Amino acid sequence: MDVESGISRRGLIGGAVAGGAVLAFGGLRQSASAASSSGSLPSNVDVVVVGAGISGLMAARNLVKAGKDVLVVEANDRVGGRVLNHTLNNGSVIESGGAFVGPTQNHILALAQELGVPTFKEYVAGKNVYAAKGMKLQYTGTVPPDPLILADAALLQLRLDEMSKQVPVDAPWTAKKAAQWDSITVEQWIKRNTILPRVREVLLAYLQPSFGTDGTNMSLLFLLWYIATAGDETHPGNFTRSSSTADGAQDSRFVGGSGLVPQRMADALADRVALNAPVRRITQSASDVRVATDRGTVRAKQVIVAVPPPLALGIQWSPALPSRRRQLLQHMPMGQLMKCDAVYAKPFWRDKGLSGSGVATYGAVRAMFDNSPADSSCGVLLGFVGGSTWQTYGRKSLAERRAAVLEGFALFVGKEALNPVEYVEHDWTLDQWTKGSPIASPTPGAITAYGSTIREPAGRVHWAGTETATYWSGFMDGAVRAGERAATEVAALA
Amino acid sequence: MDVESGISRRGLIGGAVAGGAVLAFGGLRQSASAASSSGSLPSNVDVVVVGAGISGLMAARNLVKAGKDVLVVEANDRVGGRVLNHTLNNGSVIESGGAFVGPTQNHILALAQELGVPTFKEYVAGKNVYAAKGMKLQYTGTVPPDPLILADAALLQLRLDEMSKQVPVDAPWTAKKAAQWDSITVEQWIKRNTILPRVREVLLAYLQPSFGTDGTNMSLLFLLWYIATAGDETHPGNFTRSSSTADGAQDSRFVGGSGLVPQRMADALADRVALNAPVRRITQSASDVRVATDRGTVRAKQVIVAVPPPLALGIQWSPALPSRRRQLLQHMPMGQLMKCDAVYAKPFWRDKGLSGSGVATYGAVRAMFDNSPADSSCGVLLGFVGGSTWQTYGRKSLAERRAAVLEGFALFVGKEALNPVEYVEHDWTLDQWTKGSPIASPTPGAITAYGSTIREPAGRVHWAGTETATYWSGFMDGAVRAGERAATEVAALA
Repeated sequence: MDVESGISRRGLIGGAVAGGAVLAFGGLRQSASAASSSGSLPSNVDVVVVGAGISGLMAARNLVKAGKDVLVVEANDRVGGRVLNHTLNNGSVIESGGAFVGPTQNHILALAQELGVPTFKEYVAGKNVYAAKGMKLQYTGTVPPDPLILADAALLQLRLDEMSKQVPVDAPWTAKKAAQWDSITVEQWIKRNTILPRVREVLLAYLQPSFGTDGTNMSLLFLLWYIATAGDETHPGNFTRSSSTADGAQDSRFVGGSGLVPQRMADALADRVALNAPVRRITQSASDVRVATDRGTVRAKQVIVAVPPPLALGIQWSPALPSRRRQLLQHMPMGQLMKCDAVYAKPFWRDKGLSGSGVATYGAVRAMFDNSPADSSCGVLLGFVGGSTWQTYGRKSLAERRAAVLEGFALFVGKEALNPVEYVEHDWTLDQWTKGSPIASPTPGAITAYGSTIREPAGRVHWAGTETATYWSGFMDGAVRAGERAATEVAALA
Repeated sequence: MDVESGISRRGLIGGAVAGGAVLAFGGLRQSASAASSSGSLPSNVDVVVVGAGISGLMAARNLVKAGKDVLVVEANDRVGGRVLNHTLNNGSVIESGGAFVGPTQNHILALAQELGVPTFKEYVAGKNVYAAKGMKLQYTGTVPPDPLILADAALLQLRLDEMSKQVPVDAPWTAKKAAQWDSITVEQWIKRNTILPRVREVLLAYLQPSFGTDGTNMSLLFLLWYIATAGDETHPGNFTRSSSTADGAQDSRFVGGSGLVPQRMADALADRVALNAPVRRITQSASDVRVATDRGTVRAKQVIVAVPPPLALGIQWSPALPSRRRQLLQHMPMGQLMKCDAVYAKPFWRDKGLSGSGVATYGAVRAMFDNSPADSSCGVLLGFVGGSTWQTYGRKSLAERRAAVLEGFALFVGKEALNPVEYVEHDWTLDQWTKGSPIASPTPGAITAYGSTIREPAGRVHWAGTETATYWSGFMDGAVRAGERAATEVAALA
């Protein structure tokens, strides 16, 4: 280990021990050598971590704390994975990827505090807006008070919560009714359990942003498990926490953008993070494991793979990964999701008594949030365009989609929405190194057949990534938890 | 083009023009330079074909005939993809992969004739055996005469045929009921349309060998389409042809093994086939396309990708593939299938009046075939172990699985089956460069959402592989047809 990275390591540990050592980390971020973008890699380390998303970086961070020599190899030219800051023309920062945090997400919250990234509450004052064909309502809370859906929706939620309680977060395949629940799609289950199609339309405002799918290809067992993981060891998950803004998964955001979290972790890891280093082959022998990247091959004692499931499939494995593991990876497609943001001089909807939240059963924007920066120096509306809505609008021209998204915003907050000062969008399906967003969802039958391999090491290879978490899977919190778990697993071996 | 490959090209065209020029091709196979296994690749060709399975080789063959300079790059150290000969200890040859051919599969049959590979009829004289708990029957034909299934099975077949007639082979997503049929799994549809669970158990003898899955994760629309493709332009597909031995998909086999077909194509292409050359990146520009392999980068005007769908996902694409195409690739997992063969001094079951075909509702062998070589110089029984049966037996030790498979054979043909002179198995899920077998099946929702991209070129990139065929998709015939279609598409452009 060279002198410079030795210094970085001390900085890292110091920051961690000091807790709220914001300035130390801020200083480190400016002064430390950044992640390397080119040049040769070290030939030999204790642990190689594949993927510099929050999960991989967290694993590396903890392994460094444990005294291990670590290298994080990242295919992309940046860190953060599905978490990505975007700077607006006016200098404000918003997120193009994962952004929200909430109660019981204590691992991401603790990490952010350690890194000096404070949170602020998502704006919820005022009324939400609900739009369905021939109806527009203002309301508070999570469920729109559409008389056509209320009874069904209440019952649906009750059933989801009751069933999800029967699904162990660490082994959903052992649920008593696992086979039955894994045999049907979420879409079908909803159809069977509701009277009016509108309930499903409303539920898309949850499904599309959460999974990037309408549930047409997603196992019901997976949804039940996902809901069960929306909590922590002392607060069992439930649908309300999984779907709500205040006190739920969308409760708060990070000042300066969630992208600061992976960025500051990477800064502290300094040249232990290697960018532009896609992994092509992982070769295990009795004595070591070799990770071949476009920037050279690194030998290690153990490897942590912290990439979206379909990407692990693209690596050439020798020996082959266990078959059931490879089958699992093939049965976890990534969702389809875009985030579309419109920027206004100020959050004008607030003056109208509106929260900036909206749910619609039609159009390009099924779910809208207020995405203004913490200081409200400008107003930003965020529309999720996912699943079948992405199918429709994702393939239109930018101009057409922009117009449709702005119309969607205007439906909720008025005509002023049609004239933003800036429009920004990010289509995660186009991202070479994530292949979709926000998460990978198992298709029917996959959890019961292959699910038990989700965290099962394959020789010297261990698994991180939010999909391997047992709480808040699919969220930044799950990514942190998975990274921590993988680091603990490996620290004992490397 | 160098002198040697010029000679090879003349040999190829000569053979093709001469039709049954068996000896010329036989001679070529012995004398021509083989596919290259190492060393640098040409820097510039008209067309690069990715994948040296039957489909890619067929595309290359036709493009060479059209006067194009072609290079086939293959990741593996052999050609053939999912078609693979295996030489037994006694020198006889059997197949570890795709083997059967039948009526209306005119493209593979014509190709094989051109290459001098004759067919012989699969042995069907004598009785088949059906085994269910508490019942064993001998019968002829396709459907076991179990009184507990007959009524249901007949109705099921009728319904499948009626529905599949409504599915256009070239555009299943346009079927009137496409959305409905694409929303449920095959397993669910069967459950809904049968009274007794045993019908489904029997149907597994078709589903597991054909798809490597029980249908738990497979769209009903896909099955209907697959059945519709079991024919040709003048003989609409139907379930009987898709599932039968005599006059059906398992009617005949190739003398010397199906592996001779890709081998002879590759021999004729000589050093236009490069082995050990996994493709890592495909980069398109306004003027060309560059294919980066482990053996160097090749520039071309056009590319044909003829690999199993999940493998295309593992290539680094620049620019990114169209999103819907990448989504399709993520929603087409490969099946799980092993072929297990036991070899005996002679096909002893024939003397007992048995065909060597069997269907069971339990045990390691749900579907058995007589796999003896054309000259019956020894007896070979073939068991398919796929889907949930693979889940159970694929993870056992070789000794345990061998014992279970032999017991399965003995159930059908008697105790002599327990003592083979040789036992051979091939688990396709372990194959790095296919990732499963026999085919990739779309999960629910995928065909209607993304299916229309199945043959849609992405700039200079075109698609082959049996999954892109419109007749006999999933068979060698579909592979040939897809290769021909892709070659025609590209010949006009390169």
